[in-house]
Amino acid sequence: MEPAGPLNVGSVARLCANYDIKELRLVSPRCDPSDSEAVRMAVHGDAVLSDATIFPSLLEAVADCQLIAASCGRIDHGDMPLQSPEELAPWVQRGRTQGLRTALVFGREDRGLSNEELLVSQRIVQLHTGDLYPSLNLSHAVAVVLHELERERRLQAKSGSPSQSAPLSEIQASATELDDCLRDAEALLLEVGFLLEHTARARMAKVKGLVQRALIRSEEVALFRGMVRQLRWAARRNRP
Amino acid sequence: MEPAGPLNVGSVARLCANYDIKELRLVSPRCDPSDSEAVRMAVHGDAVLSDATIFPSLLEAVADCQLIAASCGRIDHGDMPLQSPEELAPWVQRGRTQGLRTALVFGREDRGLSNEELLVSQRIVQLHTGDLYPSLNLSHAVAVVLHELERERRLQAKSGSPSQSAPLSEIQASATELDDCLRDAEALLLEVGFLLEHTARARMAKVKGLVQRALIRSEEVALFRGMVRQLRWAARRNRP
Repeated sequence: MEPAGPLNVGSVARLCANYDIKELRLVSPRCDPSDSEAVRMAVHGDAVLSDATIFPSLLEAVADCQLIAASCGRIDHGDMPLQSPEELAPWVQRGRTQGLRTALVFGREDRGLSNEELLVSQRIVQLHTGDLYPSLNLSHAVAVVLHELERERRLQAKSGSPSQSAPLSEIQASATELDDCLRDAEALLLEVGFLLEHTARARMAKVKGLVQRALIRSEEVALFRGMVRQLRWAARRNRP
Repeated sequence: MEPAGPLNVGSVARLCANYDIKELRLVSPRCDPSDSEAVRMAVHGDAVLSDATIFPSLLEAVADCQLIAASCGRIDHGDMPLQSPEELAPWVQRGRTQGLRTALVFGREDRGLSNEELLVSQRIVQLHTGDLYPSLNLSHAVAVVLHELERERRLQAKSGSPSQSAPLSEIQASATELDDCLRDAEALLLEVGFLLEHTARARMAKVKGLVQRALIRSEEVALFRGMVRQLRWAARRNRP
């Protein structure tokens, strides 16, 4: 998300190559990914770097993804529950094994992700650090998360099953599906006067936090949209 | 060990600050630790960076240390058994809790550590990576190891005991004690003709590998030295 340092972008491209991550997506980078400093740090991740795709918004970057986890270094993270990397890894890795399109989101070097951006994710991971200076460099956060996923991948490959037994939902909704649905619901709730312009964002954030924790499925989103459509029809039906 | 990149040195200083590591020791750095690139990457690790001490050899750098673990990215690592970070962490963290002076050794960016240098350590850790491009950037390797130790530290702090129950030996020998002892033994074995000049290094490496795996204690080194002294006396006694 909006990386400002070409050294970081290059380093992350190298890490993608180190961990067989095929795709690097940059949201509105504040630096040139083809900068010589980025190329220098990418080393054998140069193909990942040159193939990196650029998106204008986080939502567009993860639009096709079904499992989305964000890294959060900040203390103030709203109501979203935080997980440790070792808690996150079995969930992400199992999803990857089942073929779910998975995104790992990392925030800006200087101010991480906003609470609204965090809500694009279903899970938020907070890395272990000391207390005095907890702010890790961006690429080091990426290194730690990818290492933990690789550890879990090997563990699952060895045991034939994930180290955590909770079943993943069948078909996760994509970020786009969920966002479209929530916008639709928000419009309805504004229309019916449940939401006011100045309270809409905060209230919808709570709704989003809830369904993200629940790992909403595609079929549930469809159900929800059906409800909204019907309610809208009902709300409009008797208007003069 | 002989870092060549000021960006790496600065990044590692920042990681030291992130993880409350008080001391950064550089062995014959191939770059200037006060280079502007190093300072730029250190951010709030600037004090660690400016206080970093420089040593002419690995052995001198770890001379006062009792627990020594090295990171090894290379495939060819001699006979030394490799551990994963999660296997290493309980051992290191328990030693730190017991007040043992602990060193984490990281090799050169381009060629890691030699087998002889690896033998300075009692444990060798190999990080998880993908198979195609397993070579992590130096500072990313440091990030992964320090994160794992911090995870273990929290785990032990919570449970009041390490997650692995094997007891640490009482008083570990320091690297200097062990090295002095082995040199003394080597001299004796050359003197008595057990070793020849061209086989000494390889054979002593095997001895060192053995005692390192055993986590030799200070008192055992003393015992060993007593033996060597006595054998030398015996060997010289009847010479013409």
